[in-house]
Amino acid sequence: MDPRRLEELLRSIQSGEVSVQDGVRMLKDLPFEDIGEAMIDHHRTLRKGFPEVIFGEGKDSELVIKIMERMVETEENILATRIEKTKARAILQRFPRASYHPRARTITLQVSEVEEVGRGNILVISAGTADIPVAEEAMVTATMMGNRVETLYDVGVAGVHRLLNHREKLIGANVLIVVAGMEGALPSVVGGLVARPVIAVPTSVGYGASFDGVAALLAMLNSCASNVAVMNIDNGFGAGYIASLINR
Amino acid sequence: MDPRRLEELLRSIQSGEVSVQDGVRMLKDLPFEDIGEAMIDHHRTLRKGFPEVIFGEGKDSELVIKIMERMVETEENILATRIEKTKARAILQRFPRASYHPRARTITLQVSEVEEVGRGNILVISAGTADIPVAEEAMVTATMMGNRVETLYDVGVAGVHRLLNHREKLIGANVLIVVAGMEGALPSVVGGLVARPVIAVPTSVGYGASFDGVAALLAMLNSCASNVAVMNIDNGFGAGYIASLINR
Amino acid sequence: MDPRRLEELLRSIQSGEVSVQDGVRMLKDLPFEDIGEAMIDHHRTLRKGFPEVIFGEGKDSELVIKIMERMVETEENILATRIEKTKARAILQRFPRASYHPRARTITLQVSEVEEVGRGNILVISAGTADIPVAEEAMVTATMMGNRVETLYDVGVAGVHRLLNHREKLIGANVLIVVAGMEGALPSVVGGLVARPVIAVPTSVGYGASFDGVAALLAMLNSCASNVAVMNIDNGFGAGYIASLINR
Amino acid sequence: MDPRRLEELLRSIQSGEVSVQDGVRMLKDLPFEDIGEAMIDHHRTLRKGFPEVIFGEGKDSELVIKIMERMVETEENILATRIEKTKARAILQRFPRASYHPRARTITLQVSEVEEVGRGNILVISAGTADIPVAEEAMVTATMMGNRVETLYDVGVAGVHRLLNHREKLIGANVLIVVAGMEGALPSVVGGLVARPVIAVPTSVGYGASFDGVAALLAMLNSCASNVAVMNIDNGFGAGYIASLINR
Amino acid sequence: MDPRRLEELLRSIQSGEVSVQDGVRMLKDLPFEDIGEAMIDHHRTLRKGFPEVIFGEGKDSELVIKIMERMVETEENILATRIEKTKARAILQRFPRASYHPRARTITLQVSEVEEVGRGNILVISAGTADIPVAEEAMVTATMMGNRVETLYDVGVAGVHRLLNHREKLIGANVLIVVAGMEGALPSVVGGLVARPVIAVPTSVGYGASFDGVAALLAMLNSCASNVAVMNIDNGFGAGYIASLINR
Amino acid sequence: MDPRRLEELLRSIQSGEVSVQDGVRMLKDLPFEDIGEAMIDHHRTLRKGFPEVIFGEGKDSELVIKIMERMVETEENILATRIEKTKARAILQRFPRASYHPRARTITLQVSEVEEVGRGNILVISAGTADIPVAEEAMVTATMMGNRVETLYDVGVAGVHRLLNHREKLIGANVLIVVAGMEGALPSVVGGLVARPVIAVPTSVGYGASFDGVAALLAMLNSCASNVAVMNIDNGFGAGYIASLINR
Amino acid sequence: MDPRRLEELLRSIQSGEVSVQDGVRMLKDLPFEDIGEAMIDHHRTLRKGFPEVIFGEGKDSELVIKIMERMVETEENILATRIEKTKARAILQRFPRASYHPRARTITLQVSEVEEVGRGNILVISAGTADIPVAEEAMVTATMMGNRVETLYDVGVAGVHRLLNHREKLIGANVLIVVAGMEGALPSVVGGLVARPVIAVPTSVGYGASFDGVAALLAMLNSCASNVAVMNIDNGFGAGYIASLINR
Amino acid sequence: MDPRRLEELLRSIQSGEVSVQDGVRMLKDLPFEDIGEAMIDHHRTLRKGFPEVIFGEGKDSELVIKIMERMVETEENILATRIEKTKARAILQRFPRASYHPRARTITLQVSEVEEVGRGNILVISAGTADIPVAEEAMVTATMMGNRVETLYDVGVAGVHRLLNHREKLIGANVLIVVAGMEGALPSVVGGLVARPVIAVPTSVGYGASFDGVAALLAMLNSCASNVAVMNIDNGFGAGYIASLINR
Repeated sequence: MDPRRLEELLRSIQSGEVSVQDGVRMLKDLPFEDIGEAMIDHHRTLRKGFPEVIFGEGKDSELVIKIMERMVETEENILATRIEKTKARAILQRFPRASYHPRARTITLQVSEVEEVGRGNILVISAGTADIPVAEEAMVTATMMGNRVETLYDVGVAGVHRLLNHREKLIGANVLIVVAGMEGALPSVVGGLVARPVIAVPTSVGYGASFDGVAALLAMLNSCASNVAVMNIDNGFGAGYIASLINR
Repeated sequence: MDPRRLEELLRSIQSGEVSVQDGVRMLKDLPFEDIGEAMIDHHRTLRKGFPEVIFGEGKDSELVIKIMERMVETEENILATRIEKTKARAILQRFPRASYHPRARTITLQVSEVEEVGRGNILVISAGTADIPVAEEAMVTATMMGNRVETLYDVGVAGVHRLLNHREKLIGANVLIVVAGMEGALPSVVGGLVARPVIAVPTSVGYGASFDGVAALLAMLNSCASNVAVMNIDNGFGAGYIASLINR
Repeated sequence: MDPRRLEELLRSIQSGEVSVQDGVRMLKDLPFEDIGEAMIDHHRTLRKGFPEVIFGEGKDSELVIKIMERMVETEENILATRIEKTKARAILQRFPRASYHPRARTITLQVSEVEEVGRGNILVISAGTADIPVAEEAMVTATMMGNRVETLYDVGVAGVHRLLNHREKLIGANVLIVVAGMEGALPSVVGGLVARPVIAVPTSVGYGASFDGVAALLAMLNSCASNVAVMNIDNGFGAGYIASLINR
Repeated sequence: MDPRRLEELLRSIQSGEVSVQDGVRMLKDLPFEDIGEAMIDHHRTLRKGFPEVIFGEGKDSELVIKIMERMVETEENILATRIEKTKARAILQRFPRASYHPRARTITLQVSEVEEVGRGNILVISAGTADIPVAEEAMVTATMMGNRVETLYDVGVAGVHRLLNHREKLIGANVLIVVAGMEGALPSVVGGLVARPVIAVPTSVGYGASFDGVAALLAMLNSCASNVAVMNIDNGFGAGYIASLINR
Repeated sequence: MDPRRLEELLRSIQSGEVSVQDGVRMLKDLPFEDIGEAMIDHHRTLRKGFPEVIFGEGKDSELVIKIMERMVETEENILATRIEKTKARAILQRFPRASYHPRARTITLQVSEVEEVGRGNILVISAGTADIPVAEEAMVTATMMGNRVETLYDVGVAGVHRLLNHREKLIGANVLIVVAGMEGALPSVVGGLVARPVIAVPTSVGYGASFDGVAALLAMLNSCASNVAVMNIDNGFGAGYIASLINR
Repeated sequence: MDPRRLEELLRSIQSGEVSVQDGVRMLKDLPFEDIGEAMIDHHRTLRKGFPEVIFGEGKDSELVIKIMERMVETEENILATRIEKTKARAILQRFPRASYHPRARTITLQVSEVEEVGRGNILVISAGTADIPVAEEAMVTATMMGNRVETLYDVGVAGVHRLLNHREKLIGANVLIVVAGMEGALPSVVGGLVARPVIAVPTSVGYGASFDGVAALLAMLNSCASNVAVMNIDNGFGAGYIASLINR
Repeated sequence: MDPRRLEELLRSIQSGEVSVQDGVRMLKDLPFEDIGEAMIDHHRTLRKGFPEVIFGEGKDSELVIKIMERMVETEENILATRIEKTKARAILQRFPRASYHPRARTITLQVSEVEEVGRGNILVISAGTADIPVAEEAMVTATMMGNRVETLYDVGVAGVHRLLNHREKLIGANVLIVVAGMEGALPSVVGGLVARPVIAVPTSVGYGASFDGVAALLAMLNSCASNVAVMNIDNGFGAGYIASLINR
Repeated sequence: MDPRRLEELLRSIQSGEVSVQDGVRMLKDLPFEDIGEAMIDHHRTLRKGFPEVIFGEGKDSELVIKIMERMVETEENILATRIEKTKARAILQRFPRASYHPRARTITLQVSEVEEVGRGNILVISAGTADIPVAEEAMVTATMMGNRVETLYDVGVAGVHRLLNHREKLIGANVLIVVAGMEGALPSVVGGLVARPVIAVPTSVGYGASFDGVAALLAMLNSCASNVAVMNIDNGFGAGYIASLINR
């Protein structure tokens, strides 16, 4: 409960405007009913400027549109992830000011300017070209959350020189997101080259014994670099989100 | 917060004994600080007469004794599970009034009489003799929680007549706990014979492709009988506990 | 064998109407042939008022219709689960008095009024909106089996205040069904808030390392709350069924 | 090498018709080249009267027809498995004398009468109606291999009386094939009722934690009945085949 | 119920010695109570001459001795499996007439001569020397069940000529038991060389990706030879048992 | 950096043409920027004559065409794998001089003659006909890399004589690629017959407990033949590639 | 190469002190030889004040002592993890100034004061008492890396009020490390209560279907809270390490 | 059959010394009996100079000694792998001329000088120090098979500069064996740096989600470098063996 509202209530009791019985009734459910508000308020302040997010997978365009319509009323920016091309078309017709990012498979709708709140750069790295959709999802997310984001794609470990050629970018980043499928080895190599946190995202890219990303996931969890933490398979959004929190 | 205590506080504010500022300070942390107490009180009432429980696995006898010493002060009965023989000896030396149930690998210490609160019988069934320790753990738990418990051991599905011979017991039970390792088929057969809830407990009994109870666990989760719900492998205690709640 | 029929037979033997040889022949196969009837009779009495159930997955609308046609003759209510929209349309054309519950993907056909037989309320809780179909399947099942059912949806653990806001509902329920995908943590939290049996249903909602519900399933099996028993992934029907038996 | 042909060759050498050098050349590759023939001859004799078999999965109707065309020249009966309805239609147009068994998803083409070679009956049992296609594949296979085959369907363990009602069939069979999905418990129960070999076939029937037949497979491998041996998931053909060999 | 006993009872009713009421009481529980006896009688006849079996794993020597003491009273031969050397010593002291088979890790106690009941030879084949204990368990079991058993050890697929050298043995066998760890390929090769049933037993021999026998188990389940059925990992006893039933 | 270019630079510094400051600037990033070139140069020399490779899976024909257009400028031969028939048609329209290999599902575009660089023959063996696509992918790859390649198809272990009939081919090969699905036993048998390296390729051919190639993969990793190394499931290209390197 | 050293070298070439040939020789291996130094220097600067770390698992006390002896020469602080009590005793005898933290199973040897470099607090939370060793490992690591660390133990989700009672601590932390075994649900709940990064550490605490921490790992990877990144099972050290980097 | 022996036999038949009947008898079993000899002879020639190998795991020192005693008679060199220190001591007492390699856990007994037969160098690389035992097993094996072997240890991917510092060794090797546990990424990086075959060996080094080497195994199977083939977990011997064949 807002201290000011609490103070007012107590003053009304003191002045006799509100009876003790009514006061008890209004306050006794506080522990349960108020906790939500308190948390939500707290979150709202901290997340000021964050976009509202829609996880698009398994939702048809109608449902996404319905949710977006409710959201635009709050005047927050909107980020919708996992939106395939055909779905996007229907949504953009309804919200012509929204943008579709085909590689990231995301829609963004900016109501207000995104304020830059990040302390440093976030660098999004991908091992192969097939990993780019997940990397771009992370990139769009972090951008919408107020960060300067750089990208470095197709620098997989079987051509380690391609990575080493970008020393400046690696060392210059405050947080790194590393996206890789197949053997998922890139976060370990990157982790060894920098002294900043590395958020690793396994992708379902691969075939056979990649088991839809399990091989990459296990590799990342077992990284011999100590500065690597891991997200769920294909979870580019989560990586962009937590990297943004780290970069604040 | 206890309504009576809340009422008293408001009265003190009304009367001016307590200032509004102090009232605000005392109340504003209610949502978080009080929720625990509220819950605990609620639980305490509901769980009146339940034993205190110690999960003994991975705890040495000294630690179990230390926890029991703290518990005896609350004057509740005590149930300690997963206590191997040698550990039990040390504990019984310190608590001579406690009893050790070697097959169930549990220790019970009864401070007050266990009041019977169950509406009907709980029947604990085991498929093989090797499953008995888990079955007995369930039996002792349900007994300590105030239930009449019957047992029916070594009635595995490869000799289905042994089970059918005990029609009365099966049909007479209000809740059934069925413990089985290997192919874990017994809960399905029992489930088909009764119209009461069946709590299935897979055990790690078996070898090779039993994978320490996984085969039995999967069989039970896929039971074609609709009245079967499943516990973790070897979780006799949990089965006894939830069966007791069902039987109240 | 029905005792009355048995008595009649023995009387005919006593009176000489039936020879001993014929009597032996008629009785000797009793153990095997009669057992089914005996069981079925017993079940029938206990399950008086239960709906007949059709598991619709993998059955086309023609097959479902054929089964329903046979069932309506028994004058029992009918519940058909896992019926997708297009299938439902065909079935409703044949049975215009049946109802389709799109979110629950079930069809119900009430021949007689459902008699309320439950002792208390069953509360069906879902973690996310994507888990609602499974929750609704449980809800429709429990309703058809004669229970008062309440629901509480979208109260996942990442916003625990949403759950706590509904204290009354939680504490007021006699049995709780908790449906969750992804990390499957909700049954543990709910289990800790109530002292009644919790039936946990993992769903296949999630992606990547959720492995189509395995993550949620394992979490529920390992619940640190002792009053949680688990159903197969997406098995809303089974949860509604066993909760109904518990609630009798 | 056929002893008669070998004798002729040696006689020609003895008589001088064939030189020693030519003899060496003809014989020296015997170990490798002849082994196949020897084996094939041996097999041919033993398998006299067996049908030629085509595994239809992954083959289009054209390819199946092409293989069948080659086969009919050998004047053996033909059995083609895993043939879906639409494929079957095309094949039957080309071979109007062939028969399609829709439930078994097999095509048979009888050139000569199937001679009965089995010593006793083979009994094919299925747990649920959804398991019938696999059971029928076994049944058609065993029939084509010269056995009297009986069937007993929909006698799953959750209604064990349905199984017990068929005591005569069970005890009368020389080999039993038991087909079950979900928890795969039926072979254990059947195995306990008979003293003959039981060939267990897990099916991919089920959902969630059945993992496409893995639950049933593991249950069968861990059967507490000792007279149960297991086939691959959905391998009705193999079960019919090996049961036929046992029954010879 | 034994027809003779049933006839007597009916005669007593006919003669008035037993009242109809008493007759009803005696007969009405038949379905459940008698089924066991009937089955047991049936089994006893069929299994005439079979040894009594003790699964020794997880049982200490005292328990094995206690079970054996009860068994010797039935005057059946006894087979105890999974008995390690030290355990065996204690058991032999109590039963000096018993024999210990160290490679098979089994104890046999012959009260009466084992009567030969097998129609042909059983051939037990092992891939490597480390698989021999499981093979010997199968061999001892089949021998105790009245079969002529031959063995062929250390003929793994990486030296396929060793196997081919024993053509006569292979072709001469009526049932074949093939025991293999590691890649578990031997049953497929043997299955292709004979036209008799092959019982495949995977062993836990191997390391790393053999996963304690899973690799071998999967290989055997996927055998491209159709005459292969599979037992649980290391289940030599089961293989010997079912092979004996096949060989009757 | 190319020693000659480095020498030139230093001479220009010595002669004063280039200032020390400029020299420092040009050289200081050498460690990172140059490493790639160095490696690429080194590789380029070694891989002289290798085709450029496109992994076609998940790429539509437009993308493949775009990549090929860029590649033809380098005047290297091109190999595109995992190209399904319909995709191939579109690509061949744009590159009429390219060839499509339907069984191998590959496209090759030869700009210059493939120079033979292999020391001996590579022999590609497949267990079943369904494994041929993967085998052909290996064959086309090795051919494009300058090897004489022989093939031996449909010689699975259940008919080991078919393999033995080709003794000459087996013994004559310098490297062997063995492709097998289902139980994956062929590499072990082949490995035991030759004293040359065997590259084993599991395929996803099979059903049920083959788990899309896992059974074959595990079998190959556990081969009792020591001369077997394993590729990812269905990785025919990789097998052809590494076999070519071995054969140089 | 250090720009200054490079400049000197070029000046010597310019002045003729060093010949062009010698310059080429000295520079041509730069790409490979220098990269390591460059990286190491860069790391050294960034990691200034970090402890040297020894992973003690699988190393006997002698080996740990030997490594520590080498390390003390660098005058860095030392952290040795996974040191069991008996091993610790031997190590402390050799390094009497080192401290053993028994709950964290770590040894620390402080040569110089740990300078505080963290921007805010790190809060380490554990679900159960059995998870404390992993939590303490994280705590000691983060402390040694210059952070203020608070702890909050035994606040598992089955008693969510215990967690909520510590609102201030939760909201006050800059980075949170959440350690949990069994169902691993705590990071989701914590993640929903704060708007800061949460590093989740699954532990191997549990039994049966916890599969040594896999259940908790999967739950954490599938967290419905977006601010959760995951470490390997029991990797308290890694969590402390990356949390420290985030907190800088 | 040896052509000369065959020729002699035919001459004896031609001359009448041997009758046709006796000739038939002697020749008819050739296909089976002779194939082994033929193969063995062929292998013997090819493997001339190879050591005899004993896989020591699961064999006690007595058994190893017994096998070695039989082997020394063939006058081949002997290599025994997986010999722990205490076992080694007993073996060396019996064979004082044998050497124990403690890091490789192997015993070698050189009867004759190892002749160098390799065309180039074999380079054995390990990621961590804990992987060295497996690397050394490969090294000793390849050395005993007549190769020049170099080693490069502790060059894991988290410090990629350590690897790059050894450019010469990498590029100079004819075959590379790369041994790594944990995330198993090293073979991909090495594979990208060289144009020679890379034999990857996953080790069981790691904890938690390394699953005793599965993480590393999967990473290696999914390597994005095409020149990587994989051995079983910890199979250093096999890697040394096949690398030797490649290097011939």
